[in-house]
Amino acid sequence: MKVFSLFEIAEMVNGSVERFGEDVANIRITGINTLSAAGDAEISFLANKHYRHDLLNTEAAAVLLAPDNDAPDHCAVIRVADPYLAFTLLQRFFYPPSVPNGQRQVSAVIDPSALLADDVEVAANAVIGANAHIGSGTIIGAGCVIGAGVKIGERCLLHANAVVCTDCVLGNDVLLQAGAVIGSDGFGYAWDGAQHLKIPQVGRVILEDDVEIGANTCIDRGAISDTVIERGVKLDNQIQIAHNVRVGAYSVMASQVGVSGSTQIGKGCQFGGQAGLAGHINVGDGVKLAAKSGVMSDLAAGGTYAGAPAMPHRLWLKISALTLKLPEIWKTLRSR
Amino acid sequence: MKVFSLFEIAEMVNGSVERFGEDVANIRITGINTLSAAGDAEISFLANKHYRHDLLNTEAAAVLLAPDNDAPDHCAVIRVADPYLAFTLLQRFFYPPSVPNGQRQVSAVIDPSALLADDVEVAANAVIGANAHIGSGTIIGAGCVIGAGVKIGERCLLHANAVVCTDCVLGNDVLLQAGAVIGSDGFGYAWDGAQHLKIPQVGRVILEDDVEIGANTCIDRGAISDTVIERGVKLDNQIQIAHNVRVGAYSVMASQVGVSGSTQIGKGCQFGGQAGLAGHINVGDGVKLAAKSGVMSDLAAGGTYAGAPAMPHRLWLKISALTLKLPEIWKTLRSR
Amino acid sequence: MKVFSLFEIAEMVNGSVERFGEDVANIRITGINTLSAAGDAEISFLANKHYRHDLLNTEAAAVLLAPDNDAPDHCAVIRVADPYLAFTLLQRFFYPPSVPNGQRQVSAVIDPSALLADDVEVAANAVIGANAHIGSGTIIGAGCVIGAGVKIGERCLLHANAVVCTDCVLGNDVLLQAGAVIGSDGFGYAWDGAQHLKIPQVGRVILEDDVEIGANTCIDRGAISDTVIERGVKLDNQIQIAHNVRVGAYSVMASQVGVSGSTQIGKGCQFGGQAGLAGHINVGDGVKLAAKSGVMSDLAAGGTYAGAPAMPHRLWLKISALTLKLPEIWKTLRSR
Repeated sequence: MKVFSLFEIAEMVNGSVERFGEDVANIRITGINTLSAAGDAEISFLANKHYRHDLLNTEAAAVLLAPDNDAPDHCAVIRVADPYLAFTLLQRFFYPPSVPNGQRQVSAVIDPSALLADDVEVAANAVIGANAHIGSGTIIGAGCVIGAGVKIGERCLLHANAVVCTDCVLGNDVLLQAGAVIGSDGFGYAWDGAQHLKIPQVGRVILEDDVEIGANTCIDRGAISDTVIERGVKLDNQIQIAHNVRVGAYSVMASQVGVSGSTQIGKGCQFGGQAGLAGHINVGDGVKLAAKSGVMSDLAAGGTYAGAPAMPHRLWLKISALTLKLPEIWKTLRSR
Repeated sequence: MKVFSLFEIAEMVNGSVERFGEDVANIRITGINTLSAAGDAEISFLANKHYRHDLLNTEAAAVLLAPDNDAPDHCAVIRVADPYLAFTLLQRFFYPPSVPNGQRQVSAVIDPSALLADDVEVAANAVIGANAHIGSGTIIGAGCVIGAGVKIGERCLLHANAVVCTDCVLGNDVLLQAGAVIGSDGFGYAWDGAQHLKIPQVGRVILEDDVEIGANTCIDRGAISDTVIERGVKLDNQIQIAHNVRVGAYSVMASQVGVSGSTQIGKGCQFGGQAGLAGHINVGDGVKLAAKSGVMSDLAAGGTYAGAPAMPHRLWLKISALTLKLPEIWKTLRSR
Repeated sequence: MKVFSLFEIAEMVNGSVERFGEDVANIRITGINTLSAAGDAEISFLANKHYRHDLLNTEAAAVLLAPDNDAPDHCAVIRVADPYLAFTLLQRFFYPPSVPNGQRQVSAVIDPSALLADDVEVAANAVIGANAHIGSGTIIGAGCVIGAGVKIGERCLLHANAVVCTDCVLGNDVLLQAGAVIGSDGFGYAWDGAQHLKIPQVGRVILEDDVEIGANTCIDRGAISDTVIERGVKLDNQIQIAHNVRVGAYSVMASQVGVSGSTQIGKGCQFGGQAGLAGHINVGDGVKLAAKSGVMSDLAAGGTYAGAPAMPHRLWLKISALTLKLPEIWKTLRSR
C-alpha cells in the first residue's frame, strides 16, 4: 500500500496545504475517492459543482479545491489550480499502467514469422499473424486477433477480443478497449446494373501515438489510401469511423458518434455522443459538436455547433426556444 | 416431443377452453407459432392488433385470446387475461433454459486459482482469469474472456465472445449476449495543457440478479466507485452505459441507447431506441422515453418524454404537428 | 505484379483510350490509385466532383473519365460510361478475393459432427459447433464462433471474432466483418406483474446469397419465425436488426442504423447512417432515408424521406429552412 503525507501529495499535484486544526501534519493518505465515499485515510476533490453539497459531509481526510472554492470546516484542504487534473495525477500515481510480464500463453497462436519484443505479453487464446511486429512493453489481451503484417508500437495495451486487421499500424502507447475493430473493410460498392459490386478495400488504418479506441468501436480501413487517427485522439465506445477519414490530433469523441467516408476532421475537436457526420466534408480545428448533431457540410474552425442539420450552437439555442413557442405563434396568428 | 391437450395448456396459462365443435378434447398441441405460420398441431395467439386479420386464416388448432377478442369460427380458443404473457409462459415451457453439462473444453484456458462450481460448463477457447469465481448452473460460451477477480453467480449464460473485465461482478441468472463488453474503461481524461491524461478507471461494473445485456452492448466500469445495473434490468443490443451510471431495477432499454457518465436512472423506466442521455442527470422512476429522445436535464418520475431536447410527449406531439404547419404560418405572415 | 497496357485496361472496363501524345502505347499500368496519390505507373479516376481539382495535378499515367469530364492536358484518358464502376472492376481485378488454403489450424476446435468441405480454411482459435455445415471455398477467420447446427454456404468469408449463433443459415458468398453477431436473441419479454419474463427466441437468422454484414453489426434471431436478410443486401458497421425483420434484396444501409422488431423493408432501399425505424411497419421498395431519419409508420415505395418523424425529403427541406426563419417569424408577430 502506498501511503503519503499531505505535504507529499501537495508536491505531487503542485498545490499547497491549507492548515486546518493541528493534526494536518499527521494525516496519511492511502488513496483517492469521491466526496461521498471517501474514508478518513483518503483524499477527495471537487471538480463539478453538481457535487458541491457533498463537500459538507465528506469524511475524506482532505480535499483538493480550486482557489475559488469555499473550504469546508472539518477537513484539510490542498489548493490547486485544477482539481480535476490534480485528482488525475494522483490517481495515475496510485494506479500506474500495467507492465507486460513477457509471458506468451501456450494457447496463444503466434505465427513463427511474427517479431515480438522480448517483454511482450500475449494472453490466452490471442492470435498473431504472419510478419506482425509488436514493440516492447506491449500487452496483447486474451482472444485478440492481430492480422498478418500488422505493426504495433511500444507500450500498447489491447484488451480482450480486440481485432486489428491485416497491415494496420498502431503507434506507441495505443490503447484498444475490448471488442474494438481496427481495419474492417470500408463500405464501398459500385452498382453494375444488377448488383452491388464490392470494391476491395486495400488501404490501412493508421493509429498514431497515444490514441485510445473504445469498446466495440470500429475503424474501417481505407479504400485505396489510409484511414488516419492522429496522435492523442480519444474515441469512446461504439464509434464508427468510415474509410479514408482523418481525425486530427487530440480530438475527442463521445460514444456512438458516426463519421462517414473521406471526411477530414481537424485537431482538438470535441464531439458529443451520437453526433453524425456526412462524407467528404471538412471540419476545422477545435470544432465542438453537441450530442446528436447532424453535420451535412463543412464547418469552420473553432465553432460550436448543434442540431441536425448542424448550426451554430447559439442559433440552435434560439431556434429550440422558439420552437417551443410554436403553439403561441399559431394561436396568435389564428386570433388575428 | 412435448404433447399436451388443450385443457393441460389452459391450466399452464391460467386460462379457460372455449368449446368449439366436438373435437376439442382430441386436440393435441406440440408447439406454439404465429397465426400465419402455425400448423394444425400448434397453438397461436393474438397480442398485437396489427395481426388481427391473420386470425381469420390461421391454421392453428387453437388460439390464445384476450376476453375482448372476437373468437374465429374455425379453431378452438383459450381465453386468457393476457395472451402475450400466456404465449410467453408456454414458450418457456416448450423451450426451457439451457443447463450446463459440466464440461470444460480442453481448449478453454482456466487459471488454476479460479473457483468454478462443479457443474459449470466452459465452452471451447473461453478464457477464465485468476481468482475468478463462477457459480453453479452457469455456462461460459465459446471465446468468452472472464478477467481476473471476476465474480459470476449461479445459472448465468454468457454467449460467445462476451467479455467481462477484471473484478466485475455478475449476480445470479444474468444473461450476456454475444460480444457484450462488461467493464471496459470509462471515458475519462484531464487536459494537462498539452495532452489528454487518461484517468485510471478503477471502479467495477455490478450487474445484479436477472439482468440481460444485449449483443455488443458495452458497460463501462466506474472511474472510482462502481457502475451499477440493478436487478431485472434488460438492455438490448449496442447500448452504451458510461461510467458510474446507475440503472434502476426492472428498467428496459431498446437498442442503441447511450447513457453518459454518472447519470442516475430510476426503476421501471422504458427507453426507446437511439435515445441519448447527458451525464450527471437524474431520471425518475417509471420514466418513458420515445426513440431518439435527447435528454439534457433531470426528468421527473412517471413522465413520458420525446424529442431532442426532450420534452413531455404530449407537448412534443403538438410541436411536431405545428412544425409541419410552418409553411402555412410563413405564408399567412407574408400575406398580411 | 500484374502489368497491363492501357488498351488491355480499356478492354477490361469497356472503355476507349483517348490518345494523348505519342507514348500512350508504351504506358504500363501496375495499379489504381487516387488522383492525388497515383504514381506514373498507375491509373486513376474521377467519380466525385469534390475531387475535380485533383485532376489537374495528378501524376497518374492515365485517368478513367466520364464522357462529360474535361480531359486534362498531361495524362492519358480512358473514356467510360461510369468511372466509379470502371475503377471497381479494375480494383477487383488487381485484388481478387481470398481463396481458402484448406488448412484447419490445430488450435481451432471443430466438433467431430461438423461437415466441412475439403478446401474450407479454419483459422486459429475458431470454434465450430456440432452438426455445422460449411461449404466449399469458405474461410472462417481467427476467433470466430460458429454455433451448433449452423449452415454456411460456399465462398463465404468470416473475419476475426465474428459469431454465428445456433441454427442460423448463411447462403453463398456471404461476408461477415469482424465482430459481427448473427443470431443473438431478439429482445422480447412479457411482464408477469413482478418481473420481465424472457421469451425464448427460437427462430433463426437467414442471410441469403451475397449479403455483407459490417463490423460489430448485430442481427437478432426471430422470436418464432426467422429474421431474413435477402440476397445482395449490404449492411455497414454497428447496425442493429431486431427479431423478425425482413430486409429486401439489394437494400443498403449505412452505419448505426437501427431497425425494430418485425418491420418489413422492401427491395433496393437505401438508408443513411443512424436512421431508426419503429417496429411492425412496412417500408416499400426503393425507399431512401436520409441519415438520422426516424420512421414511425409505413412508407410508400419509391419515396425519399428525412427527419424524425420522417417526412418526404422535399417537405423536410422546406420545414428545415422555415425553422431557421423562426426568429424572423417571432419578431414579425411581436412587432404587429
